[in-house]
Amino acid sequence: MTEQNLQILLASRPTGRPTPDNFKLVRTPIPVPGEGQVLLKIRYLSLDPYMRGRMSAAKSYAAAVEIGEVMEAGTVGEVLESRHPDYEPGDMVLSYSGWQSYAVADANALRKLDPDQAPLTTALGVLGMPGFTAYAGLLTLGQPKPGETVVVAAASGPVGSAVGQIAKIRGARAIGIAGGAKKCALVRDEFGFDAAVDHHSPTFAEDLRAACPDGIDVYFENVGGKVWDAVFPLLNTFARIPVCGLIAQYNATGAFEGPDRLPVLMRDVLTKSLTIRGFIQREFSDQRPAFYQDMAGWIADGRVKHKEDIVQGLESAPEAFIGLLEGRNFGKLIVEVA
Amino acid sequence: MTEQNLQILLASRPTGRPTPDNFKLVRTPIPVPGEGQVLLKIRYLSLDPYMRGRMSAAKSYAAAVEIGEVMEAGTVGEVLESRHPDYEPGDMVLSYSGWQSYAVADANALRKLDPDQAPLTTALGVLGMPGFTAYAGLLTLGQPKPGETVVVAAASGPVGSAVGQIAKIRGARAIGIAGGAKKCALVRDEFGFDAAVDHHSPTFAEDLRAACPDGIDVYFENVGGKVWDAVFPLLNTFARIPVCGLIAQYNATGAFEGPDRLPVLMRDVLTKSLTIRGFIQREFSDQRPAFYQDMAGWIADGRVKHKEDIVQGLESAPEAFIGLLEGRNFGKLIVEVA
Repeated sequence: MTEQNLQILLASRPTGRPTPDNFKLVRTPIPVPGEGQVLLKIRYLSLDPYMRGRMSAAKSYAAAVEIGEVMEAGTVGEVLESRHPDYEPGDMVLSYSGWQSYAVADANALRKLDPDQAPLTTALGVLGMPGFTAYAGLLTLGQPKPGETVVVAAASGPVGSAVGQIAKIRGARAIGIAGGAKKCALVRDEFGFDAAVDHHSPTFAEDLRAACPDGIDVYFENVGGKVWDAVFPLLNTFARIPVCGLIAQYNATGAFEGPDRLPVLMRDVLTKSLTIRGFIQREFSDQRPAFYQDMAGWIADGRVKHKEDIVQGLESAPEAFIGLLEGRNFGKLIVEVA
Repeated sequence: MTEQNLQILLASRPTGRPTPDNFKLVRTPIPVPGEGQVLLKIRYLSLDPYMRGRMSAAKSYAAAVEIGEVMEAGTVGEVLESRHPDYEPGDMVLSYSGWQSYAVADANALRKLDPDQAPLTTALGVLGMPGFTAYAGLLTLGQPKPGETVVVAAASGPVGSAVGQIAKIRGARAIGIAGGAKKCALVRDEFGFDAAVDHHSPTFAEDLRAACPDGIDVYFENVGGKVWDAVFPLLNTFARIPVCGLIAQYNATGAFEGPDRLPVLMRDVLTKSLTIRGFIQREFSDQRPAFYQDMAGWIADGRVKHKEDIVQGLESAPEAFIGLLEGRNFGKLIVEVA
C-alpha cells in the first residue's frame, strides 16, 4: 500500500473553548496487526461531547488523552486484514479506534456489525453508546412512570432524542429542550415529544414552566448551565435527575461567580427528596443485550426515530467537534472518514 | 382539675437564628377528649433540628407551624382519660402532641410504649424518629459495604451516633464528626466509631482527610456547611450521600456569597458517579417493624448505645432548642415536661 494513515492528534490542551490549534493532522505508516488483531479501515467516527473531558488533564472517570496521542472516538471500520479466526476481510465492526483513517485493534475489543440489520452509522448513535446512555440512564435511574413528566435538553441530539422517545414508550410526557426553531420542530414533529422548548428564547424559563404544568418528575441532565436553572424550580417531590453530561460547563475556566447555588440545591434535595445521580453508561453494561433487542424493535416498529448529521472527511473532525460543543450540529454528529 | 395546660406557641417567625421572642408561653384550659380520643399528660418532648424548618413559612416537606399555634414535637405522654377501648389511664404512649403539658390525641395516632422493655425516652431517640432516620437512610440509601468508609457529622447526636454504630455492624469503617473534644471522646469511646474528627479544629479538613485514607464511600449528610466542604473532595467514585438535614444552613438568610459551588458539585456528580438523595424517614415507614426489632436487639446486646441530654421543664424548651441549632446539646435533646 502506498497509502498512509491520517491521524488527528491532541496537539495541546484547550483553555476554555477548543480551537483548531489544539489538534494536529499527521500522516503515519499504516499499522500492522499482530496475533489476535485486525487491521481496520475506518469508515465512520463518532463525535461526542465527552471528548472535551478527554482533552483536559483534570481527573475524570476516564484517563485524559495525552498530548501527541490520537484523539479518542468510537468508530465503525472495515476489516482489511485479520489475525483472529472470528474476523475476516470485509467484516464491519465497531471499535474505539479514534480520529484516524486506519487502525489496528484487538479482536476481543470489537463488536461485529450486520449492515443488513441496521445502517452502520446507527452503531455510533441510536444503537450505540448515545442510545444506550439514554436507555440505561432513563430506565434504571430516571424510572419514568406513566403520566409523569420527563424533561431532557439537547433533545435533538442522539441521547436527548432517545430519552424522550423511550419516555413516551413508557407512558410519560416528554418535554424536549433544544436551541432554535429548526431543532424544536425536529423534536416535536419527528421525535414526537409532547412539547419542545427553545432555550434561545428570552422567555425560555417561562416557556418551560408552561410546558410542564404538573412539574418535572425526571430531568435527564446532559447540559447544565441555564437549562438547569430553569428546570430546578419545577422539580417535583421525589424527582430523579440522572446526570450524564454537562456540556454547558465543559469549556468553563476558573471559579464560577456567585451567588453560591449549592445551599439552595441542597435545601431542595432535602425538602423535595430529590435524587441526583451521575453515571456513565458502561456501569450498566449488563443491560446491553436488552438494549439492543428493545431498541432494534422500537426502531423497526417506528417508535424510535433518529437523525444523523454526517460531515465528510477526517480533516473536518476538529471544526465539527468545536461546533458540537456550541450546538451547531443537527442530530447525531458523525464523520465519514472514508 | 385546677391545673392548667402550659403551651409554647410560635409567636413570630425567626429571621436567621431563633430567639426567645419567637416563642410564647401561655396557659390554657386542659382540653377534653372526644369519642375515640385520649387525654395525655406529656412527660417528655423531643427537640429536633427539623423544627427550625417548621418555624419558617418557606415551602418544605411539611406544612409550617402557623403563628399562634403550638410548636410541633414528638412526645411521650401518660393516658389520663381514654375514650377509646385500646387505651386506659396509666398507659404510656408516643404521640406528636407538641410543646405542651397536656394534649388530646386521636387514639389511632398513638403508639403504645412498654416502659419495661425500654426507657420511655428512647421512643424519642434511638428507638424513635432519629434512630429510624439513621437506620432507613443509611441502610436503604447509603448501603454501606464491609470495608467501606462511612462519614457522618453531628456524630454525638441521636441520628449521627446511630448511623456510625449501624455502619460498624455492617462491617464498614465509621468516622464521626463532632464539635469539641468532649463530643469526640463520646463518639470514639462510647459509640465505638473508628475515629472522631473535631470540626472546631483549625486543621479540620486535613484531620478528616487523615481519618479517611481510602476516601469516603457514604457520607450521611445532616449538617451541610463547612463539613460538606471538607467531605466533598474525599468522596469516592460511586459514593452515596443520603441527605436528611442541613442544620448549618437552617438559620441562613438571603443569598449565599460566591463562588458558585454548584457547577463543581455537578462536575463531580458526573465524573465520580455520585448519588445524592434527600429523604425523610416517613418515606420508609414500611421498614419500621424491622427497625424496632433490629434496633432493640442491637441495644440489648450492647452494639448500639445512646446518650440523652434531658432538660427540665417545658419553659426550658425554647432556650434548649436554640442551643440545639448551635450544637450546645450533648446527646439526644429531650425536655422532661412533668
